[in-house]
Amino acid sequence: MGQNQLAAVPEPKYWHLRTVLVRTIDQEFSTGQVLPNERELAARFGVARATLRQALDQLELEGRLVRRRGIGTLIAAPRVGVPVSRREEGWPGVSRSQAWREVGCVSAPATPQLAQALGVEAGSLVHTVRRIRLVQGQAMATESLHVPDAALRALPRVVGRSAQTEADPARLVLRQLERLVIEGESRSVELGVAEAEEASLLERPPGTPVLVVTTQYAGAGKIAALSVSTYRADTCKLTFGETGLVEVTPVQEPQPVGAAS
Amino acid sequence: MGQNQLAAVPEPKYWHLRTVLVRTIDQEFSTGQVLPNERELAARFGVARATLRQALDQLELEGRLVRRRGIGTLIAAPRVGVPVSRREEGWPGVSRSQAWREVGCVSAPATPQLAQALGVEAGSLVHTVRRIRLVQGQAMATESLHVPDAALRALPRVVGRSAQTEADPARLVLRQLERLVIEGESRSVELGVAEAEEASLLERPPGTPVLVVTTQYAGAGKIAALSVSTYRADTCKLTFGETGLVEVTPVQEPQPVGAAS
Repeated sequence: MGQNQLAAVPEPKYWHLRTVLVRTIDQEFSTGQVLPNERELAARFGVARATLRQALDQLELEGRLVRRRGIGTLIAAPRVGVPVSRREEGWPGVSRSQAWREVGCVSAPATPQLAQALGVEAGSLVHTVRRIRLVQGQAMATESLHVPDAALRALPRVVGRSAQTEADPARLVLRQLERLVIEGESRSVELGVAEAEEASLLERPPGTPVLVVTTQYAGAGKIAALSVSTYRADTCKLTFGETGLVEVTPVQEPQPVGAAS
Repeated sequence: MGQNQLAAVPEPKYWHLRTVLVRTIDQEFSTGQVLPNERELAARFGVARATLRQALDQLELEGRLVRRRGIGTLIAAPRVGVPVSRREEGWPGVSRSQAWREVGCVSAPATPQLAQALGVEAGSLVHTVRRIRLVQGQAMATESLHVPDAALRALPRVVGRSAQTEADPARLVLRQLERLVIEGESRSVELGVAEAEEASLLERPPGTPVLVVTTQYAGAGKIAALSVSTYRADTCKLTFGETGLVEVTPVQEPQPVGAAS
């Protein structure tokens, strides 16, 4: 059954080398260790330097290796599990987690695309709070939190604003959002690439792969906020824990497929 | 605030072209249309063929373009939203959805790594059902569903097995699993690459980016099953709908960051 789907796909040379390197890394190296230099590696595996570099690039992209100027190529630490949920994500109405840090706020008329996603009329005022998420002191994600002005105005006003809040539009939007009673949320995850500005916030080159998490928050029967966040795909693993189960370890597939079908 | 984080990152030439191409595609082309050939495009944008090819490769990787032999480079359809949840994912105990198709089953002693992930002793028997998930007739994901033999044996036996089930170990494992009462699940999503065998099932070259979804299912206080599935990152967007909100449309960031902070 399905054996016909297993027709051999030609395997590029660098890809074969990558697979060999993954095994070598797992067996001979541990996190933080420095790999031998390119000349030595190319000699050991009997490949051209160009092929080796392609395989190393691939492993860096996968987050298995990390290059440090002046040191060389190191074995990367395993990806950090980053919980994604309203509570953990630092929704301002739920927690005042220190995980997210505001980096700006823009209030502007909605583009047609944004208006559609928010279910408001094009051109209506939308506040966009930009934040970064810090994990172990490092920027792991950027977020654009889009909030229609109308949704914000429908909430009970925050009283006793401090002078600091007055001077800080991001803080003002977030404080007001704390009043929102969230009735539901809908989330999607897809692969994306960091555009120049996101890349800069994440301290990575543009084009770095990111996991794009889009969350719609509903309140009072409408979309009250739309969060678009980009997580570093090389160092993050998003977790959606519904229970207190044990930590999931990535599993190497132990068997060929279809052997017993 | 945070302005110091916005230091310019040098933008590679191909990346700049990619950004220009994204805008051009959005404004001048629609799904399924064929792009002009490389010579024409290179001339139009005043770039070297190598730079153009790098930008097109990037856009293919992002799922915005798709190459068809004999036709050329087409504008890809938007990503398909694929619901990821116990119900939608075709857990055998919940739905007999036709979305998943078995392609094999292997029963073998657990590797130390798999044993750890399942919370069983290394070397104990584990059944691994391999399936593919079809969306609109196309293979969108592969899955390895690992089930400890002990967990399976603890369930009430399936009676009245048909001759067909007897002859098909995958079906046997899945039918038995239908008896499991799931008490909780824990899920993670991360970026991965299709290994040769997965790539073959997905009809893509090895190294194709995939979203790896790892789900632990708990029953009777233990891990009853572990599912590791790989979704095509170029054509899929995973959805985690907790409510019946409207479809989320990807949003182009409408503003520069930090302007009003």
